[in-house]
Amino acid sequence: MSELPGEFALIARHFRPLAAPEALGLGDDAAFLTPPPGHELVLSADAMVEGVHFLPADPPELVARKLLRVNLSDLAAKGAAPLGYLLTLAAPRATPDAWFAAFAAGLAADQARYGIGLFGGDTTSTPGPITLSLTILGTVASGKAVHRTGARAGYGIWVSGTIGDAALGLAALQGRLADPTGALAARYHLPEPRLGLVRADLVAACLDVSDGLVQDLGHLCRAGGVNNGGVGAEIEAALVPRSAAARAAGPAWLATCLTGGDDYEVLMAVPPEHEPAFAGLSTTVPRTRIGRFVPGAAAVRVRDEAGGVMMLDHGGWSHF
Amino acid sequence: MSELPGEFALIARHFRPLAAPEALGLGDDAAFLTPPPGHELVLSADAMVEGVHFLPADPPELVARKLLRVNLSDLAAKGAAPLGYLLTLAAPRATPDAWFAAFAAGLAADQARYGIGLFGGDTTSTPGPITLSLTILGTVASGKAVHRTGARAGYGIWVSGTIGDAALGLAALQGRLADPTGALAARYHLPEPRLGLVRADLVAACLDVSDGLVQDLGHLCRAGGVNNGGVGAEIEAALVPRSAAARAAGPAWLATCLTGGDDYEVLMAVPPEHEPAFAGLSTTVPRTRIGRFVPGAAAVRVRDEAGGVMMLDHGGWSHF
Repeated sequence: MSELPGEFALIARHFRPLAAPEALGLGDDAAFLTPPPGHELVLSADAMVEGVHFLPADPPELVARKLLRVNLSDLAAKGAAPLGYLLTLAAPRATPDAWFAAFAAGLAADQARYGIGLFGGDTTSTPGPITLSLTILGTVASGKAVHRTGARAGYGIWVSGTIGDAALGLAALQGRLADPTGALAARYHLPEPRLGLVRADLVAACLDVSDGLVQDLGHLCRAGGVNNGGVGAEIEAALVPRSAAARAAGPAWLATCLTGGDDYEVLMAVPPEHEPAFAGLSTTVPRTRIGRFVPGAAAVRVRDEAGGVMMLDHGGWSHF
Repeated sequence: MSELPGEFALIARHFRPLAAPEALGLGDDAAFLTPPPGHELVLSADAMVEGVHFLPADPPELVARKLLRVNLSDLAAKGAAPLGYLLTLAAPRATPDAWFAAFAAGLAADQARYGIGLFGGDTTSTPGPITLSLTILGTVASGKAVHRTGARAGYGIWVSGTIGDAALGLAALQGRLADPTGALAARYHLPEPRLGLVRADLVAACLDVSDGLVQDLGHLCRAGGVNNGGVGAEIEAALVPRSAAARAAGPAWLATCLTGGDDYEVLMAVPPEHEPAFAGLSTTVPRTRIGRFVPGAAAVRVRDEAGGVMMLDHGGWSHF
């Protein structure tokens, strides 16, 4: 019994240094947590599979940081602040130790950046691709969470950052698009969770753009229209903020920007009386008004520069 | 946008009916939770991979219930009561809808049995085997959690239920052992989390037996011996409780019982002054004293009926 088998050594070497105080050195099969008084806990989970959500050649540091960030993005959309996470990792037995070391280094870098720690998890072998699952925990002042359901006709549709870079980055990594500066691929690899932007006193509804702008806007419409006569959305393609790199790709890629996933910007419904305050918030995160919610069916209309309605092949991305 | 893509339909059909109130109908990418006053939250996560932790032919209902129960077992070992869980599920695109229906039915059955709900999660396709990850949440009165670290020389070693059935059940399912009543395979498929047995006022240290009795006892020794001069363990093989089916397998399978994984019984360190009260607890869960903790190195000695020390090939099971 003096030799620890491989699983325990792997955890001790790569993951114990990441443990939050609440995880008791990952030695207890569980973490123990008391949320601060007057706060509720916010929980979310996302999985990433090699070959589906990331490419086998992607640097493990970036895979780790993307996994954390897509989950942090869910907290950002709720107006929550992050506390920590649990991670389960299934990897082939032949996965080199260097992969785990680089993966853990990526986690460590973003733990420091976001002030969070590892609460626990599990490692196992798999005959299949590397499969990662992360449960994120955050807190929000009680009653101050922002939900999907608050969009109403007349509210402004706002989005953070720029839209479409991640989908174009994937195209670039697949050799379908030039990416001379690497900016597009960088956005695909490393989203920027918009923590701190979404405030319940100004934003009535929010989600993060993970399945494509148009599809996710449809989610806000459906959630907002329940018991409410229905809520649709009208946006103008020309107003959707695109980076210099995305604009350089040319008009043929506009539809990809509008329907591609993985941007992890926040999409918000802002009541008209709060729009000036929201626009004036003191933050470096860009915010752009791209349209408004309208009465009626939960449809998303995208107008082109001539005022016509664009036909889009599909609203967004489904992982199943 | 009126047609929901496959991922959302799948979630709506099979998983939304399982949602806890805190999950807002799984419509919000997050769940919101306030632990009861005077309690801390207990968190744990475990993954299961087809072909590693369960067999492709295993009924999906049982896979679901085992996944829940191995996580509930972690809570049981901490003296915590369960609240709910988050689930991520990666499955091949060709997985039939009936598989998801049966899997969800298994979750529903054990949700009702244990009074818990689904807080959230994620579904995705995978080119590999079905891969499941579950994060369980529970509560324990503040300061009343039972940890791994409390074992001291002189304390009794107690175990719940019977040991070895799950390992023999796996052997039976693999055709290496007869299982005329099906009792062994049943224990492999469906562990019984020992919720409610482990109380901080009587039990000084605990973990659940998931990697094998001897290996997990080694964990208790190592965790208990830190800053404490070292803690070892001595148990008597004849005292280790085995079911009628396990005894019927014959003495050749004794070592498998002692080192096989997946039992999910609780292994406890009980101070001598509390042993009468612990033995007298009013519960139907069997408890057996199998030995005691001793001073010295973190070694586990298993004595056979003649008093000699048994040589075991390996202490237990590593998933990596």
